[in-house]
Amino acid sequence: MTGSAEQLASTPPASTPFEILRAAFVELRVTDLAASERFYAELLGMIVSARTDDAIYLRGWEERQHHSLILRRAPGAAAARLGFRVRSDGDLDALQAHFTAAGLTTRKHPSGADPGMGRRLQVWDPWGWPLEFVAEMEQFQAQHQRFDLHRGAPLLRFDHLNLHAPLVEEAFRFWLGLGFHCTEYISTDDPADERITGAWLTRKPAVHDLALTAGTGPRLHHFAYWIADPMGVLRACDQLAGGYHSEVIERGPGRHGVSNAFFVYLRDPDGHRIELYSCDYYTGDPDHRPLRWSVNDPRCRSFWGARAPDRWYDESSVVLGPDGEPVQTRPAGVDERDQRTEVFA
Amino acid sequence: MTGSAEQLASTPPASTPFEILRAAFVELRVTDLAASERFYAELLGMIVSARTDDAIYLRGWEERQHHSLILRRAPGAAAARLGFRVRSDGDLDALQAHFTAAGLTTRKHPSGADPGMGRRLQVWDPWGWPLEFVAEMEQFQAQHQRFDLHRGAPLLRFDHLNLHAPLVEEAFRFWLGLGFHCTEYISTDDPADERITGAWLTRKPAVHDLALTAGTGPRLHHFAYWIADPMGVLRACDQLAGGYHSEVIERGPGRHGVSNAFFVYLRDPDGHRIELYSCDYYTGDPDHRPLRWSVNDPRCRSFWGARAPDRWYDESSVVLGPDGEPVQTRPAGVDERDQRTEVFA
Amino acid sequence: MTGSAEQLASTPPASTPFEILRAAFVELRVTDLAASERFYAELLGMIVSARTDDAIYLRGWEERQHHSLILRRAPGAAAARLGFRVRSDGDLDALQAHFTAAGLTTRKHPSGADPGMGRRLQVWDPWGWPLEFVAEMEQFQAQHQRFDLHRGAPLLRFDHLNLHAPLVEEAFRFWLGLGFHCTEYISTDDPADERITGAWLTRKPAVHDLALTAGTGPRLHHFAYWIADPMGVLRACDQLAGGYHSEVIERGPGRHGVSNAFFVYLRDPDGHRIELYSCDYYTGDPDHRPLRWSVNDPRCRSFWGARAPDRWYDESSVVLGPDGEPVQTRPAGVDERDQRTEVFA
Amino acid sequence: MTGSAEQLASTPPASTPFEILRAAFVELRVTDLAASERFYAELLGMIVSARTDDAIYLRGWEERQHHSLILRRAPGAAAARLGFRVRSDGDLDALQAHFTAAGLTTRKHPSGADPGMGRRLQVWDPWGWPLEFVAEMEQFQAQHQRFDLHRGAPLLRFDHLNLHAPLVEEAFRFWLGLGFHCTEYISTDDPADERITGAWLTRKPAVHDLALTAGTGPRLHHFAYWIADPMGVLRACDQLAGGYHSEVIERGPGRHGVSNAFFVYLRDPDGHRIELYSCDYYTGDPDHRPLRWSVNDPRCRSFWGARAPDRWYDESSVVLGPDGEPVQTRPAGVDERDQRTEVFA
Repeated sequence: MTGSAEQLASTPPASTPFEILRAAFVELRVTDLAASERFYAELLGMIVSARTDDAIYLRGWEERQHHSLILRRAPGAAAARLGFRVRSDGDLDALQAHFTAAGLTTRKHPSGADPGMGRRLQVWDPWGWPLEFVAEMEQFQAQHQRFDLHRGAPLLRFDHLNLHAPLVEEAFRFWLGLGFHCTEYISTDDPADERITGAWLTRKPAVHDLALTAGTGPRLHHFAYWIADPMGVLRACDQLAGGYHSEVIERGPGRHGVSNAFFVYLRDPDGHRIELYSCDYYTGDPDHRPLRWSVNDPRCRSFWGARAPDRWYDESSVVLGPDGEPVQTRPAGVDERDQRTEVFA
Repeated sequence: MTGSAEQLASTPPASTPFEILRAAFVELRVTDLAASERFYAELLGMIVSARTDDAIYLRGWEERQHHSLILRRAPGAAAARLGFRVRSDGDLDALQAHFTAAGLTTRKHPSGADPGMGRRLQVWDPWGWPLEFVAEMEQFQAQHQRFDLHRGAPLLRFDHLNLHAPLVEEAFRFWLGLGFHCTEYISTDDPADERITGAWLTRKPAVHDLALTAGTGPRLHHFAYWIADPMGVLRACDQLAGGYHSEVIERGPGRHGVSNAFFVYLRDPDGHRIELYSCDYYTGDPDHRPLRWSVNDPRCRSFWGARAPDRWYDESSVVLGPDGEPVQTRPAGVDERDQRTEVFA
Repeated sequence: MTGSAEQLASTPPASTPFEILRAAFVELRVTDLAASERFYAELLGMIVSARTDDAIYLRGWEERQHHSLILRRAPGAAAARLGFRVRSDGDLDALQAHFTAAGLTTRKHPSGADPGMGRRLQVWDPWGWPLEFVAEMEQFQAQHQRFDLHRGAPLLRFDHLNLHAPLVEEAFRFWLGLGFHCTEYISTDDPADERITGAWLTRKPAVHDLALTAGTGPRLHHFAYWIADPMGVLRACDQLAGGYHSEVIERGPGRHGVSNAFFVYLRDPDGHRIELYSCDYYTGDPDHRPLRWSVNDPRCRSFWGARAPDRWYDESSVVLGPDGEPVQTRPAGVDERDQRTEVFA
Repeated sequence: MTGSAEQLASTPPASTPFEILRAAFVELRVTDLAASERFYAELLGMIVSARTDDAIYLRGWEERQHHSLILRRAPGAAAARLGFRVRSDGDLDALQAHFTAAGLTTRKHPSGADPGMGRRLQVWDPWGWPLEFVAEMEQFQAQHQRFDLHRGAPLLRFDHLNLHAPLVEEAFRFWLGLGFHCTEYISTDDPADERITGAWLTRKPAVHDLALTAGTGPRLHHFAYWIADPMGVLRACDQLAGGYHSEVIERGPGRHGVSNAFFVYLRDPDGHRIELYSCDYYTGDPDHRPLRWSVNDPRCRSFWGARAPDRWYDESSVVLGPDGEPVQTRPAGVDERDQRTEVFA
């Protein structure tokens, strides 16, 4: 029924007894830790904060928190933790109560169980995404003005997560319940059964902390770091290609219609996808209404009209369940890609 | 006493029964309304939202709210209203109670008394700055992707206010009481009597909604609009100079050490100062600690070392009191300008 | 034979009794003059210098010469004149003697036969491209510092011509005879029969005035205007898409390995292709040696690895012969496109 | 007499029996070779091509010629050689004949006397500037696409020399005799005695190879390297300041009215001035007429209106005479600085 998509998209966020601040980190399982470190620390120039026997902790140049990216050696590539900052330690208990009431599996970890992190709450949401919440993290000095040391883009800070979801609208409702609200969405044009195929949800007053896009899932489509401006995104491409690594550039650079981002998507040695992301806008006023895009609008995903390669839609990172094994995926009922067959570059 | 400055700067924001969201608009009294419109609408390319007999209401290209700048014809130039958005209409009542308890003059205005605005609360703070709070404003469609229509920089959205304060630390405490916290500050080097000469305070998770800088006051030093990137700031300068208006460029372009902003300062036909502001960073985590700069650090105000002209420190806009007359000013006891005598450009 | 490609590419330019300065203008036949004017003057923001009953003369913002682009109404789309500036009027006679000796058809036109132009020499080269040479053109004031009036990218000046050539090496030798030299070339990897599939030839000390690329021809693949910097190219894309014209963007923006250009390719209402071109480098030293790229190097055409769409290789503008009819084309024996089948965007 | 300035500025270049291509290198005498290497190779990121006991040879990232900057240890700072490329070795003999006929001191140096250089001709012009001409230089591969290795701005190639001249018009005539022509000039407004106070002269088809500006001389005011775009100039400033070296930034960044350059001026450890220079435009057509600026036009030197610091006008590098001693200087009769007393930054 027409209007149901808009109605869902316009639902105000739930009032919650906890306060999630923002998407803040991700843990990737990687099959060749040295290769992954080369990619993130040397090619992209991130700062290494800590190492353990099987893991490396990295952060962006603006970030003060101990890390925003964990690379952990494993037999198979996967996304193991999708992390969020909450305001206070007490929020972890309130969140655990919320999730337990919903019948979800949760786990608490004491402070220091992971380098630089305070007490943590893990939960697997109804579809199997491995979420994690933390209030306290060890702090470094920000390095955003050490322009003389910057390499790569540079990557300034963790910005958002993008999930491949088989059931976008159901997942959307789950996140509304956590206090997120929608800033932009893509929906089908069928007046009798308009379906949301992509939703940009946020807690911080920017376009998103979390995007849900229709696709086989639960999977992590990509995570994104903030770049100061479009020239930084171009410079990243030039540096990658100048060093004979242009094969890691999957899509872009370009501008998204959705979110107004100036972006490029890269694939790491295990195929995990990272977006370098700039531009964005302010969304913090309470009367901020979601912006709708038709799934058939060619400017929606690529403002300048280029069609993304199919693999950008088809491939993404499996996630790990409570048993440490990849969560079984299922296909999406709708497809949010541009249905045009002609391919532009 | 050493430590008192840091202690003040690190004070967590008060828990308040109201929620201020951000600095959101300003009303300027101008002596030649047509000249002011030419400056803001033609030279800087802002969008005109509404007109009345004696006023023009303008907004930036990203803004949905009815306006962020009011130009009103008057016999003398002044800043008449320093505006903030609050989350809900109820916050206005809570704020009025708060200010009344502090013995301050407040005034309520009904919805629609000003074009596009809901119910408003005016208050004159203890030094005489004319503050205003509003929850509801009429909404437009954002125009940030109508790049084909953009003129000037373009100016995207209202970002912050900067006040010339004779007593920075006292004013600082007032704003702590409204839920603001400090992200950066400048202080003197005297270990026996370290004094804060500039403070950057915020509600939104960026560097500031409000800066207090030592100077004869109460006055408005400048208000600022967000520009997408440094190239936009340069383009604004080129367009102003290309049209034979380089005389409106007062300082910059350059980068501030404080806030990391890439900026330029312009003076409007009445001498009101507007900053075109880009860059900034995220400050929303609860463990975000203020960054201190020494008043003697040449990179503090101009990261690249150029000294600002004296008039940038000396001149600013008087503010109007409850009687509609300019509030009497007093000099600051400390000076936050770079004390070097050599002049760079 | 290995080495023959390098030998041809390294051939010093002939010493000639005439001095060609640079590629300088193009005349396009267009089927809807009003639509073409909208594209070049409104969307791309070029300056209109003159109009006649059936033609419009345009120039870039830096250009002083009367025009660099002629749009002429015609029943069918075609490229009618590929124009070059020579140093002096006497060079026209020397060129005519040179072409006549080679058995080519030439035509002289008196000064003023076309608005703003002095005496002109037309010649059809051995494959049928309609070349034109002129020494004197009416001069305007440059407008490159009227940033306040610039629209679009802006387009600053005519930069080069790119021809689709069935026989690249033969055409290459023709242009050597006119005093051009090679700065970069693409060749096949077959050691027994290395063939040049693309050649960048120049008179001015930049990468090229003329490129020859293997393809069905004689045709004009594209002509290019200089843009100040990559941000200008991005701004052009944003303005086109912001005004709902993203369909004119065919390829890019991106960086070429060849020439180091930061580019975007657009198609006008008749399908004529225009490149917005920035970056480039200095090539004026006599010991400047040509840079070779393998046709199999993915960075050659797209430094960042994206594959151009097939139509970028397949489609281009027919040219007009002495009889005013399109010159018969023939396919190229070699293909200079990236042979990879996977498509990136 | 009015008109004489324009007449001089419009004088076509002499037809010469030699062909100077461009300004190409400079040798600086420096008092602390290690400090100078840190400045140019580490802070500005130039490539070191060769070293001898007392000298370091550097080049830009686009340059193929062996070097464009020589730093040589000496008891006192000075500019020792102002270098130009000529087309062929025979041009050196023709130049020597030309200078000898004018009564000037010349010296020939055999190939290899300096690393990477062929046969060289030194000459001291009538005012004492130490000019040098060379046809052949050892070649490297260009590194302009090794974006992964670039540091600093990066500096791409040598662009021009700027001389402090006590008698601008006399020096202007000398360079006309070498085949240079004028693209822009600054002159006084006195109709009875209009004087040229600055002249931009060129051989390559850009704004200049050599500028003459009124000032105590003969001295070298600055030499300049080409930067790809304005963002590169800003990035250089950020990197210098980020590494706590903002004191080397003397003027800018900004845009010149003259030449349209986006620039910044730096001072090396001995006070030698280097400009990072971008933008520029094409000047190669034979009908290109010089652009006049009034010395009283505030946009002339700083398009955005900022006044340069006095030391930018007053200080520059002494040059070495045939005896290896600094050439005696004399003050200029006219002053080309902005006569406004108010100081902007």
